[in-house]
Amino acid sequence: MEYKQVILVRMDLDLSIGKLAAQVSHASLDAALAAKKDTMIEWRKNGAKKVVLQVADLDELNEYKKKADAAKIANAIITDAGHTEIPAGTTTCLAIGPDKEAEINKITGSLRML
Amino acid sequence: MEYKQVILVRMDLDLSIGKLAAQVSHASLDAALAAKKDTMIEWRKNGAKKVVLQVADLDELNEYKKKADAAKIANAIITDAGHTEIPAGTTTCLAIGPDKEAEINKITGSLRML
Repeated sequence: MEYKQVILVRMDLDLSIGKLAAQVSHASLDAALAAKKDTMIEWRKNGAKKVVLQVADLDELNEYKKKADAAKIANAIITDAGHTEIPAGTTTCLAIGPDKEAEINKITGSLRML
Repeated sequence: MEYKQVILVRMDLDLSIGKLAAQVSHASLDAALAAKKDTMIEWRKNGAKKVVLQVADLDELNEYKKKADAAKIANAIITDAGHTEIPAGTTTCLAIGPDKEAEINKITGSLRML
């Protein structure tokens, strides 16, 4: 069984690469810690596959959050404290999984990689 | 007490933004899980501060790995499986901490943010 995690990033924010990578890491860690422990262990044993995907804006991000919740897949949405590049309270990205790759693909299979 | 994690990324690899963010997330998660549990909890309670920093190449990355080991700060170095953009076995980044911000700064305080 293949496991993966995807992290969806808003493309309408003008984040620096470093800031974007930090936000993706926040989402990844929070969702990983929200996953079932067995799933997390299995995922990490096989390389902890992570794929970063593009969404256009906040509306699209929220749509995928609803789909992940409906499918009962662990997920984490990140709202930045806004100390640096963007206003406080800006939602930047959403991690979905780790979970079975086939289940994740049902939700985000049509999104483009970043 | 302020806690943070830094993630050092090699600037001599031509990684896409998505690939870079995924590599940073691998390092961040591995080092977070290698940290003492109390440190991890304290760090996350205060926003799990993460800063992405630049290093020139593998030699510089390895230097910082040695310094982190010598200071007994939890860290994780990531070597990519090479399924996609880069040859298998390419070391891409290094996460140091979470640990006390002052201790981390002693090691990486002079590095530039990405």
